[in-house]
Amino acid sequence: MISIHTPPQPTDLGDVRVANRAVVLRHVRRHAPCSRADIAAATGLNKATVSSLVTELIDRRLLRETGLTENRVGRPATMLVLDGEPYVGLGLQVGADEIVVVAVDLGGNRLLTWRRAFAAPAASPAETVQALAALARRAANRVTGQGRTVLGLTAGVPGLVDTDGGVPLAPVLGWRAVPLAAELRRVLREPGFAVGIDTDANLAVLAEQRHGAYAGAADLVHLTGGVSVAAGLVSGGRPLRGGRGFAGELGHVPLDPAGPACACGRRGCLAALTGVDAVVRRLLPDATRDGPVTDYLPELDRIQALARAGDAAVLDGLADVGRQLGHGLSVLVNLLDPEVIVVGGHFATLAPWLLPPARTALAAATLAPPAGGCRLEASTLGATAGALGGATAALSAIEAGRLPAG
Amino acid sequence: MISIHTPPQPTDLGDVRVANRAVVLRHVRRHAPCSRADIAAATGLNKATVSSLVTELIDRRLLRETGLTENRVGRPATMLVLDGEPYVGLGLQVGADEIVVVAVDLGGNRLLTWRRAFAAPAASPAETVQALAALARRAANRVTGQGRTVLGLTAGVPGLVDTDGGVPLAPVLGWRAVPLAAELRRVLREPGFAVGIDTDANLAVLAEQRHGAYAGAADLVHLTGGVSVAAGLVSGGRPLRGGRGFAGELGHVPLDPAGPACACGRRGCLAALTGVDAVVRRLLPDATRDGPVTDYLPELDRIQALARAGDAAVLDGLADVGRQLGHGLSVLVNLLDPEVIVVGGHFATLAPWLLPPARTALAAATLAPPAGGCRLEASTLGATAGALGGATAALSAIEAGRLPAG
Repeated sequence: MISIHTPPQPTDLGDVRVANRAVVLRHVRRHAPCSRADIAAATGLNKATVSSLVTELIDRRLLRETGLTENRVGRPATMLVLDGEPYVGLGLQVGADEIVVVAVDLGGNRLLTWRRAFAAPAASPAETVQALAALARRAANRVTGQGRTVLGLTAGVPGLVDTDGGVPLAPVLGWRAVPLAAELRRVLREPGFAVGIDTDANLAVLAEQRHGAYAGAADLVHLTGGVSVAAGLVSGGRPLRGGRGFAGELGHVPLDPAGPACACGRRGCLAALTGVDAVVRRLLPDATRDGPVTDYLPELDRIQALARAGDAAVLDGLADVGRQLGHGLSVLVNLLDPEVIVVGGHFATLAPWLLPPARTALAAATLAPPAGGCRLEASTLGATAGALGGATAALSAIEAGRLPAG
Repeated sequence: MISIHTPPQPTDLGDVRVANRAVVLRHVRRHAPCSRADIAAATGLNKATVSSLVTELIDRRLLRETGLTENRVGRPATMLVLDGEPYVGLGLQVGADEIVVVAVDLGGNRLLTWRRAFAAPAASPAETVQALAALARRAANRVTGQGRTVLGLTAGVPGLVDTDGGVPLAPVLGWRAVPLAAELRRVLREPGFAVGIDTDANLAVLAEQRHGAYAGAADLVHLTGGVSVAAGLVSGGRPLRGGRGFAGELGHVPLDPAGPACACGRRGCLAALTGVDAVVRRLLPDATRDGPVTDYLPELDRIQALARAGDAAVLDGLADVGRQLGHGLSVLVNLLDPEVIVVGGHFATLAPWLLPPARTALAAATLAPPAGGCRLEASTLGATAGALGGATAALSAIEAGRLPAG
């Protein structure tokens, strides 16, 4: 688990400089191009402080001066923009049938997105770590070959993540007590950058908060689709992780004691009712004739085609899954009252059929009328939101005002 | 809803003084008796600032000097303690069969706790407002007769509370769209102090955070007992209220589609399964022979007596209610991963019989083993936790560094 909020600490001057550096970087990210005087005026920092911080940030290639100057009386002011091109964060994501790597520079530009077929549920943890490390190494080589520096890597997994970067339990992967961060570091052999782990849901909601259609919403939820169903939570503008980092497990809320068996060992969990495997089994009874599905994309394509063609059984099944999704989300809305819930994975792919019945069921089962005003929408970030969030998380230390090493 | 966390605002010098005043008050509350030099050393504020703030706080009777001095070389330092005796917060609470008022001074001393039998579910909103106002007026008269000043009043209600202090929906009271704060202010006729409204659950968890057995826990839940069942949530040290203030409605999470009808119009909600009315009806079938129960205390006494005497039907029923409670709480633990859940009202009264099966059910239905480490305990604050939290909330402006008016 990546700890974002920390308990109050005594402040020393080093901390103040770090905090002020973060303020300057954030201002430039939002308002570039801007001058040193603009930054001082907007942030309340004095001009000498801004000047000293900017000099340091230019030295470290986090900011750069443009040729532009402001047209005003007196000495022309040199305009600044975010540089950050030399610095890259990597994000990994483990799904049911693929692993993904995304690289993002400090300016928020997505440099690469590679998806590789890989059935992690059928592989051992060691094999999955090897595959993740190989993909990360290739991505790191690509961006370092472009003269950039990788500052960090964060991998998102569908399961519980503890504060040491271990995975105590990931039912859909069949993992128990896998020290993932330590194993990744070992296999990557001292890669020279920080390696962190978080849940795919926490990383996906970070991607939504920064890059999604509802970026900036203070009370925001991303529900991951796929074989795992989990909620990444932002409440009051901050990530909500719980006491031990185990928050957001909406997928294992038992909705129906008579429902189907879940990978977690219980029955009728939201994941067992609405996860991609349950949806494919239910809507395409022939899909598992030759064994378990290891590639969901073609099956989802078939479901979409059948739905578009008006197949009654598929449409009925989708409406039922949508109602179950809405029922499950009502638990979250009653408890957390978010402004908006964004659904990813197969929920986004099948949104035209799932979301209307889900919205009706959500409103019916939420105490605050109507659904507390909560919106339910499909993510626009695609199936790699977790990896995008991982890359974003890998840059968070710099955005918080720490300088890159070296 | 009382907004505790506010979006970032531009800081001006007035705000800085308010914040510094809050720092000084908090330091003295925790470390009294202490000197001006102690405060400066511990908070990092300079001595001139501390001296100026302390002078002002003594003038306004929020601090006072004691006769004590520190034994050290040089000029002896005068020691300070919190005064605050002159200032009082009032808290009101609307329950199923009583209304409660609590008065607390700024030092955290409980000055009075008055409980008055009143069946709000059978009364109109206007009658309830009149009863609350009469009780508040008597309490205010008592403390002003002692030479104290009432700084504010906060009333806790079992239902949804909006940002204007209105109650859009309170199923157990039968209320819809009751402008409670405005009505209370009108009936109290410009009382000269602030009047606020919050949910009983939000106020009860504030009381737990300040006065309870788990005071200071960063991820803390108080579950109210009574005819209403709702969760007051603290996450990462801050109240969690949701986008519109409607968070915490665990009582209306539908657990059993075939369960009993709930006051909210649905079936099988946690409140309908485990609320005090459901428990009394189930365990004491004769209790409602002469009409609805309007006084739950004697019925709870009977249940306790039967349980102690080993009545098999009552013990079975309690175990079943406990399992349902644990199942309902597993929803909350899966989603929020709190460190501790403290249960109040009849859940606390019946804790010896309810909590053991509840803990077992909670662990069984929570993904993170064992129950994510979350503790489930009975509140030690008694049935008036909401009113105590209301009185505490009524003093929050002063504790945040605002000066009393006048």
